[in-house]
Formats: sequence, C-alpha cells, structure tokens
Amino acid sequence: MWQPDRHSRQPLYEQIAADLQRRISSGEFPPGSLFPSERKLAERLGVNRSTVVAAYDELRSIGLVESRTGSGTRVNEIRRGAMSLHAPNWSRYAEDGSFLPNLPYMRKIREAVARDSSLIDLASGELSADLAPSGEFAALLGDYRYDAYWGYDNPQGYMPLRQALVSYLDRHRGIRTTETSLMITSGSQQSLYLITQCLLSPGDAVAVEDPSYCYSLPMFQSAGLRPFRLPVGDRGINPEDVFALYKKHRIKMLFLNPNFQNPTGTVLVPERRKRLLEIASELGLPIVEDDPFSLTAFDRDVPAPLKAEDAGGSILYIGSFSKIAASGLRIGWMVAPRSVVERLADARLQMDFGLSVIPQQVAAEFIKSASFEPHLERLRKGLRLKRDLLIEALRERLPGLVAFDTPRGGLHLWCKLQREVHDGRLLDEALKRGLAYVPGSVYGSDSGFVRFTFARPQEGEIADGVARFAGALRKAIV
Amino acid sequence: MWQPDRHSRQPLYEQIAADLQRRISSGEFPPGSLFPSERKLAERLGVNRSTVVAAYDELRSIGLVESRTGSGTRVNEIRRGAMSLHAPNWSRYAEDGSFLPNLPYMRKIREAVARDSSLIDLASGELSADLAPSGEFAALLGDYRYDAYWGYDNPQGYMPLRQALVSYLDRHRGIRTTETSLMITSGSQQSLYLITQCLLSPGDAVAVEDPSYCYSLPMFQSAGLRPFRLPVGDRGINPEDVFALYKKHRIKMLFLNPNFQNPTGTVLVPERRKRLLEIASELGLPIVEDDPFSLTAFDRDVPAPLKAEDAGGSILYIGSFSKIAASGLRIGWMVAPRSVVERLADARLQMDFGLSVIPQQVAAEFIKSASFEPHLERLRKGLRLKRDLLIEALRERLPGLVAFDTPRGGLHLWCKLQREVHDGRLLDEALKRGLAYVPGSVYGSDSGFVRFTFARPQEGEIADGVARFAGALRKAIV
Repeated sequence: MWQPDRHSRQPLYEQIAADLQRRISSGEFPPGSLFPSERKLAERLGVNRSTVVAAYDELRSIGLVESRTGSGTRVNEIRRGAMSLHAPNWSRYAEDGSFLPNLPYMRKIREAVARDSSLIDLASGELSADLAPSGEFAALLGDYRYDAYWGYDNPQGYMPLRQALVSYLDRHRGIRTTETSLMITSGSQQSLYLITQCLLSPGDAVAVEDPSYCYSLPMFQSAGLRPFRLPVGDRGINPEDVFALYKKHRIKMLFLNPNFQNPTGTVLVPERRKRLLEIASELGLPIVEDDPFSLTAFDRDVPAPLKAEDAGGSILYIGSFSKIAASGLRIGWMVAPRSVVERLADARLQMDFGLSVIPQQVAAEFIKSASFEPHLERLRKGLRLKRDLLIEALRERLPGLVAFDTPRGGLHLWCKLQREVHDGRLLDEALKRGLAYVPGSVYGSDSGFVRFTFARPQEGEIADGVARFAGALRKAIV
Repeated sequence: MWQPDRHSRQPLYEQIAADLQRRISSGEFPPGSLFPSERKLAERLGVNRSTVVAAYDELRSIGLVESRTGSGTRVNEIRRGAMSLHAPNWSRYAEDGSFLPNLPYMRKIREAVARDSSLIDLASGELSADLAPSGEFAALLGDYRYDAYWGYDNPQGYMPLRQALVSYLDRHRGIRTTETSLMITSGSQQSLYLITQCLLSPGDAVAVEDPSYCYSLPMFQSAGLRPFRLPVGDRGINPEDVFALYKKHRIKMLFLNPNFQNPTGTVLVPERRKRLLEIASELGLPIVEDDPFSLTAFDRDVPAPLKAEDAGGSILYIGSFSKIAASGLRIGWMVAPRSVVERLADARLQMDFGLSVIPQQVAAEFIKSASFEPHLERLRKGLRLKRDLLIEALRERLPGLVAFDTPRGGLHLWCKLQREVHDGRLLDEALKRGLAYVPGSVYGSDSGFVRFTFARPQEGEIADGVARFAGALRKAIV
C-alpha cells in the first residue's frame, strides 16, 4: 500500500492529497463515492488525523471532494467528464517562484505557537498584551469620529502621521527631518523589503551584523543579495571591518541595529558610531539604521542614532511601533533622502497600493496624546521587571550552564550554552515541553546559542518557561 | 552658467540639488553661507519655484543645508571637516533596483490630482466620498470596544474576516470555499503582486486581456514576465486565442477580469467561460480571475464567476472591497488551493509581516452588519445615476466625436475618439483645464481611446468635466 515519504520536502498532507487525486483520476474513487473517514485513513497511513484533515481540505479547495457533517467526504459529481481534467501543477508553480520559503526552524516555532495556546512563548519578538497600550487604543478608537474620505492614500503615507512622526523623531531621537523625507511602511519589515528590492540588485554584496536578525529573513536571499558578516562584540561591530569588506567585496550597503541589537542586546559605542559615519561618507556607502528598541532603554540611557549626526546623508533610518506599542498596528517608518523616499513610494504602489488609513490615524493620535509618555514609562518598567525575572530564573535553574550579558533595553536576552548541544534536538525537546524560544543559528551564529524574548510571556510564566528549558537542555546535551 | 538638462530622465529638482551639492563641496558655498532665495534661483534657472523648493528640501533631507523662516537657507556648519564628505549616489541606487518606475502618464495624472483639489477627477478608479459607507464605518468604529491583543496576526489574515468572507463569497458569488483556502491581502494589488512574484519566474510568458488594467501595472515588467495579448471583443476574449498562445509561447498563466472588465466594461459571456475552463483544465493552465466589480452590477444581472464552476482547480480568485466599499480600507482577498495560499502567506511574512488587524475587524463587522446590503443597493443606484449623467453629457457635448458601449456595471466607461488625436497633447490640454482622465494607451490600447471613471467625481461635476474634455479635444485633434 502507498505510504507518504517522510523524508520528502513536500509536506505530508500534500503528498496524501496528490495520492488521493491520482486515485480519483484513475477511477478508484468514482464520482459520488465515499472517502475513508479521517481517523481511519490517518491510522492506515500512520499520520496525525490533522494531516488527513488538511489533505481533504486541499481536495475540497480545488473542488474535487465535498464534505458534509455526519455523512463524510465524497468525490464530487462533476459535469463534463471532469475526471480527465487536471489541476495546474501547483506545487511546481510554488517552487518556481523567486521567493524562498521561510526558515524551517522559524516555521516550526510559528506553527507550534499558533497551535498551542498553553505554550510558553519566549520566541515571538513582541510585547505581551499587558505591555501593549490596548486600553489607550480602545479609547482613541471609541472617541474617534471618522468622517473623512476613505480613498486611496498618498503612497508615502497619511500626512498627519508623517507630521506627528517628524516631531516625535525630533523629541525622542534627536533626528530633524521633514514630512517629504519620511515614509510610512508596514513595520520595519516593509522598509527592509523595499530597500532590498528597490535599491539593490541580485548579486550585490551587503554587510550585516553577525549574529543578526537579518539572517532570520530569507528576504536577503530572495533578493539575490550576498551578505558578508561583521562580528558583533560587546561594543558592537568594528568599523574597520566595514572598510575591509568594502575593499574586498565592494559591499553596496550596510545593515545595522545599533541599539540593543537583535539578538545580542549590544549597544554600539559612540566612538565607533563616529568612525562608522566617517567611513560611510568616505566610501559613499549607505547604512540602513534599524532602530526599533531605543525607546525601551530601561535606564533611559542610550546613544543618539547615527541619523542624528548624519552630515553626509548616508543613513536610511528605520523605526517602528511594533516593539514599543503594538506589532498588530503594522506601522513603521523610514527617513531617507527625498529622492529615495519618492522612489520607494512609487514602487510600493505596485506592491500594496499603500496602507490602510485607520491604523495610521490611530498611531498619529496616540503619539500626540497625553497617554503616550506614561505608556512608555510603564513599558520600560514592565520590560525591566520581566528581564529581571528571566535572569533570576536562569541563575537559579541553570547555574553554570548558561552565560549572558544583562541587556539594558530591548525585548531579548542572548544566551550562550556552556555545554555542547544539538540545536534541533534542543528545540524539539523544548517544544515537546510546551516552551518556544529561538535557536541562535537562526541569526547566523554557531550552534550553542539561544535567544529568549522576555517581553512576550506573562510575568508568571517566565520561571516555568526556564524550568521547561532546563528539562529540554538536560535531554539535548551531547 | 549651469542649466538643468530638460531632456534628462533625472527630475529637474534632483539635477539642481546635485549641482548645488557640487558647489558646496567645491567651496563656492562655504559652511554658514546663504543660498539664493528660492524665487531668485527659480528665475535664474527658468524653472518653477516649487522645483527649487524640492531641491532645497532634498539638501535639507541629507543634512547639508538648514532653512529658517525669515532668514533663508544656509549651508550647515559641520564638524569633522565634513565638506569633503559625500552622500551615497542615491540616484544610481534608485535606478539599479529591479523595480521599474510607474508609467509617466499615470504619475503625471496622480501628481495633478494630488496637487489641485479643484480638479475634476475622471481618472482615479475609486468611489467618491458619498458612495463610500463612511457613516457605516464611523458607527462601527465608534461602537467597537477593542480589547483583544494587538500582536502579529496570522499571515493568512484575521480569522473572523476570513470566516465572514467564506459566507459572503457563497451568498454573493456562489463560491464555496474554506477559511484555509482564503487569504486577506492589501487590496487586489497585493494579490497580483504575490502571484507574479511567488508563482512565476522572470522570463515566463503570461496572457493578459488587450486592453487591460494589467498594462497600467509595471508590476508585470518588474517581475520580468512576458505578457501576450488576448483581444477583448464585445463578448470578452476568445478562448481559442488562449489555446493558440499556449501552443506558441507556452504561457504559464492567464490574467482575466471577466465582469465589467477594466477598462472596457465588457462582460465575458457564459459559453466562453465554459470553454475557458475546459481549456484551462486540459492544459493545466492557471487562470487569475480578478473580480472587483461584480457587486456593482446595475441591474443585478451578472454571470457566475469562473471560480464557482472550477471543477479542475485552475482558478486563483481575487476580490476586494476597494470598488464596492472603500479603497482606503486596503482589504482584498484571494481564494486558491491551500498549498498556494500557504506559500503566499509565508512569502508575505518577508514583505509586510501581514496586515493591521483594525481594518480587517472593520471589514468583518461591516460584511456581517445589517447595513451591508442597503449600502450595496445605494451604491448601485448611485453608480447608475452617474453613468447616465456621463453618457448624457457625452452625447450633448461631443456628438459624433466619441463612440462607446453602455457599461452595465463597474466604475468606468471606455470611449473611442472618432478623430485622430495626439494622446499626450490631449492629456496635457485636459489637465490644463482642470480635468483628469486616463489615456487608453495606459491600458495597452492604440491611441484614440480614453477611460472615464464616473464613480469618482461628484454628480454635479460630471457635465463640467465633459465640457472641459471637449475643450481639450478641440485643441488636440490632429
């Protein structure tokens, strides 16, 4: 009897659906005939019932079968001798596109988090519900009397939000800019996407931190870029390394996350920032400065962004609400020379035709509201408390097994494991115990590192999460 | 004296900014020195003052100059001998990316509409404010007590909206699907973008209607696709042409807008739909069915979508709220085999990380609300009235000069001019008179066609708009 191939890259449910489709075509299941029950077929193939459910769903979605509660799944009666029809070879279409699928570890983690709501999530790089300004947003929406026109917006973004961000950037980050040099995007993600798609070409060399959030983004590979590494030490990257990479590979852009770097939590020291700006100007090299975490600084002590000192016009500055308010708002921004902003705004017309006005209005009202500063204050306190709970639990549960620097801002803690482990095994053991975290290799590091996000779990979950991790670690030590 | 090159592809303001930057570097304008006033420099170079304003703004955005009200624009005092610094060559970066700029006609129209609010807009393919359900939306937002978590959403879209759309599609379009086979996108635009980027590769041949909305989208060229034409007659495209294109060019996908086609308003007749489905199944050829206008059918008489009869699973079905509710909501959807939806949802994580939850909640509430059906009824009546006003004005003001079929749904009227005209000249003359429309060549047709959108102007503006067009036409007749 046919069995799915467990080593194939094709998901099990797709293999099962394809096999059933062949059996329908061959006449084994004529129109109107009944399929085996999901439970029965799952047993026969030795797979989870949910896998068979997904396979039947796939066949339903292409109109081959129909399910009714109580009477099972039947092959459709189709006019026009449809049994000889065939659907497009969708899996070939999906494989041929230029977009690489997301990393397997990330997909596995995302699926586990989505499936099991009781899982303790130290993986998702976002705030927990109690840290988000949900009450403030609800109040703004409730008060808001929307009567303006709901038409297509300017592709650079809603003007009142751009105006609000100009004073926000001046006040909070010392960046002086104008509405015409600022563009609203769907989080930092879309800013990065627009930059890699519109300002770079396949084959271009770029420099990224090592480790870096960028490695978790197949985006760079999808755009055909060649990333070269800049090791991150406890004072950030070494600017002279940029020089060397430029000489050797003619890098065309540098991607940098200078404050509370993701994943290491490092802050790039001021003297290295100065030198970086000099090098960028000397080489005419653009730097993408990703700055999502600065406003979380627990002791409010954080260097000025490179953009604030950018006399040479080398910096594309990216910010976002995702890590300081709500990722579900999908509001980010980019500050860049006007010519760049206009180019990217034009290109985005081809992609999404701009963002919805509603979240942009909410964001603009929120920045200008009296509740913005108190929210930030509460956020910093809440994050600091969670960081301390995580560190306490790590010291208690894993003495001598982990090493880390204490982050002074951001959402993450970067841990080096002091024993040799198998990365994939450790993750599987943790997920089995209802704990998600991100293996360091996702960020391009060697194995033996993990990133814990303390912002996402509830305070009461942190110690339990670390205990589960300790259990998994014991199993995975080589 | 230096003068900008008016035949260059580089915008005038960029040329002027680059020249000024050279003068700063060369020491002609030392740090602290005053630039000429905007008015004076504009006179000297023979350009509009707004061009100089844009050039100064560009220099401000890269930190080279600073303006203060009353004291003009000065070269910045910069530390570290910054005068030898140079900014990245941004215009080269912008040109090198793989994205083509949008079409010059479209940019010109968009800029004119954005600049002059008194202009009569028969160009923008969207509803006027009075046709949009602004009151209904305001009521929904006002009532809505949002207290759920504002985190990252499922990349396939907000589940309650997907559920609402499953019954919407069943009720209104006879399409039976499931939440797992449906994905929420930022309007039809993002559905098309995901399909061209993720399911096709550079060099692939595709078939598109002629004329077609698709030609207004450099998206196809940006993705490196080779589009082949299917002429649209008064009964739609001829299915046998698809066969011929497949044999000759191995087309990999067909893009179709079967109901009230944009721009011609044509409805593809049912017997041709049947034949198309047969051909698609025989060839294993996917068809993208773009269906934004069906619910506008003025006499509620419109054929079922191909997707409703898609036994072979060949159809990727695209819908949107943009033409029946509000384009500014940015809500569209795609119905596709589950494997395709999962692939595209995964890819979109790299682009925008999903949509904001707020507009998705508004859309879900709106479809389920008691005000949805009455809104559609009001919309159909309003559109029909505007169509009649447009036709009346065309008959009165341009007798014998234009020929058209009366559209029975949609937002547009497609006109053939009965005299030879110069397309670009006609558009310039119309814009000069405060009227925007779209030249047919934007949709890939020969010159001598225009698309009028009757949905966008106020009822009272339509006759005046046609009068302005008549004035422009008299000037542009060859």
